[in-house]
Amino acid sequence: MMLDHEALRTADPSDIRTAIRNGSYSGHTAGLAPDRLQVNLAIMAEEFALDFARFCQRNPKPCPLVGVSDTGERVLHTLGHDLRVDTDAPGYCVYHNGVLQQQPTDISDIWQDDFVTFALGCSFTFEHALAKAGIAMRHIDQNRTVPMYRTSLDLVPAGPFGGGMVVSMRPLLPQDIERVRSICAEFPLAHGAPVHVGDPSEIGITDINAPEWGDAVDIRDGEVCVFWACGVTPQNAAIRAQLPVFLSHRPGAMLITDVDERANPPVLQD
Amino acid sequence: MMLDHEALRTADPSDIRTAIRNGSYSGHTAGLAPDRLQVNLAIMAEEFALDFARFCQRNPKPCPLVGVSDTGERVLHTLGHDLRVDTDAPGYCVYHNGVLQQQPTDISDIWQDDFVTFALGCSFTFEHALAKAGIAMRHIDQNRTVPMYRTSLDLVPAGPFGGGMVVSMRPLLPQDIERVRSICAEFPLAHGAPVHVGDPSEIGITDINAPEWGDAVDIRDGEVCVFWACGVTPQNAAIRAQLPVFLSHRPGAMLITDVDERANPPVLQD
Repeated sequence: MMLDHEALRTADPSDIRTAIRNGSYSGHTAGLAPDRLQVNLAIMAEEFALDFARFCQRNPKPCPLVGVSDTGERVLHTLGHDLRVDTDAPGYCVYHNGVLQQQPTDISDIWQDDFVTFALGCSFTFEHALAKAGIAMRHIDQNRTVPMYRTSLDLVPAGPFGGGMVVSMRPLLPQDIERVRSICAEFPLAHGAPVHVGDPSEIGITDINAPEWGDAVDIRDGEVCVFWACGVTPQNAAIRAQLPVFLSHRPGAMLITDVDERANPPVLQD
Repeated sequence: MMLDHEALRTADPSDIRTAIRNGSYSGHTAGLAPDRLQVNLAIMAEEFALDFARFCQRNPKPCPLVGVSDTGERVLHTLGHDLRVDTDAPGYCVYHNGVLQQQPTDISDIWQDDFVTFALGCSFTFEHALAKAGIAMRHIDQNRTVPMYRTSLDLVPAGPFGGGMVVSMRPLLPQDIERVRSICAEFPLAHGAPVHVGDPSEIGITDINAPEWGDAVDIRDGEVCVFWACGVTPQNAAIRAQLPVFLSHRPGAMLITDVDERANPPVLQD
C-alpha cells in the first residue's frame, strides 16, 4: 500500500524508514519526523573516502559531517537503530564518472563491499528552527524547492574534491536578518549562519532568477537575498571529481535519523 | 641561543614556531601566543587514517578534529602559514607497536611519505576563557600538569581505535559550575562542556589522587571534581591499537597555529 506524506506526519522515524524500505513511500521528507536530524548522503568507494573526509573537515559549513560508516557497512550505528543506508532514503541518485545514470528508490542491489557512506547535516534543521521563531520562508510558502546556485566562493580542496561552494537562497526582510543569523549559528552541523547577505553578483551569481538547482522564488520589494552554504556542495564536488561511482540521496528525499536535530555531537547515546 | 618561556610570551605564532624549529625553545606552550589555537598532534600511516578520522567523528568531545594533512605533507595549510608539523612542536613522542620509544624535539628525519597528521583541539582554549572569566584552576595555581585519568566512559570504536575516554579534572566550587559549563560549551572544538561532575567512582576512577598522567592537585573542602574529555584520549586509543608507528606531540608541548582560538571553523581565510 502506498502511503502519502500526510499519513507519515506523526509517525516515528523508524516507522517512516520501514515504510520507505518497503516501498510504501518515495516522496520528499520535509516536515516528517520533526525534531529528528535528517541527513544528506554521499556514498563512494573507500579509496576516495579519506580525501572526502578531509574535504568535509576543511569545508564544514557546506559539508557538516554528522556520520561516517564503516567500509562496506549499510548501517550508520551512531545515527539510528536499524537504520539502513541502502534502502531507507526515499530516493537516490547514481552517478558514473560524474554523469547521473539513474534515480532508483533502493540501491541494495548495486551496493559494493568497498562503499563508505558519509552523512551530512541538512538545511531542514535550521528551517525548522526559523519556522518555530515565526520567520516565513518564501520557497515553503510558494511550495517550491529552495533555489540553489553555484558561486565563486572557493572551497579548500582535498584530493580530487574542490571547486566552488553551492548556496541556497531565502529572501528576508532586513530587520529579520540578525535574528536569523543568531538562530542559524546555533546549528553548526546544519550549515550554520548565512555565508552572504545582499548582492548576488558579489559571490558570482549572475541571474538570481535562474538557479542551478531548485526553483526561483519571488523576491519582494524591500527584501534582501540571504545565502547559506548548501548540502549540494559535496555532491557537486563529487560529480566534478568524476568518481567512477558516486551515490547520493535524491534532493529533498533525505535519510531520517533517530538523533535529535539539536544534538551536538549527533551520536546516539544508547 | 636558547630562549626561555618568558622571552616568547609576546612573540607572534610564526616567530615562536621558528624558534622551536631552530632548536631555540623546547619547553611547554601554555600561555604562549594567547588567543591562538594550539593543537594536539596524532600522526600515523595513511592505512590507519580513515579509521582514525571515523574515530574522531564519532567521539568529537575527546577528539575534536581541527585539521587533517594531505598524505605525506609536513604542513597544515588550513591552520598556519609556513607551519611545519615535523619541526614546530617543542617535543614529540614516538611509539612503535604501542610502546614509547623516544621523545625527540624534531621528527623530520623519521618522517614517512605515507604519514597523515591529525590536529585536535586542546584544553588550553577553554582554560584561557575560564581564566579571563576569573575562574582559578588549581593545577595552574600549583604549577602542575592537569591530572588525567582513564575512565569507564566507553568510546564509539572505529577500526582498531576504541577503549575508554581519558578525562582531565579540575576541582571547582559548586556555585561556579554552571558558569564554567556555559563558557566551555562555547568551545566544542576544545572538548566543550564537562562530561562528568562529582563522584569519580561513577566514571570508573578509583583513586583521584593517583592520576594516570599529569599530577594530582589539592581538592579543598567544599570543592567538587569536574571532569572534561581530554586530548590524551586519541593518543591512548592509538597506543592501545598498537600501530606499528604512531607519533604525537609531547604532552604540554603543543603545536601553535595562526588560527584564532575562537574560530569555528578553524580554517585560515587568507
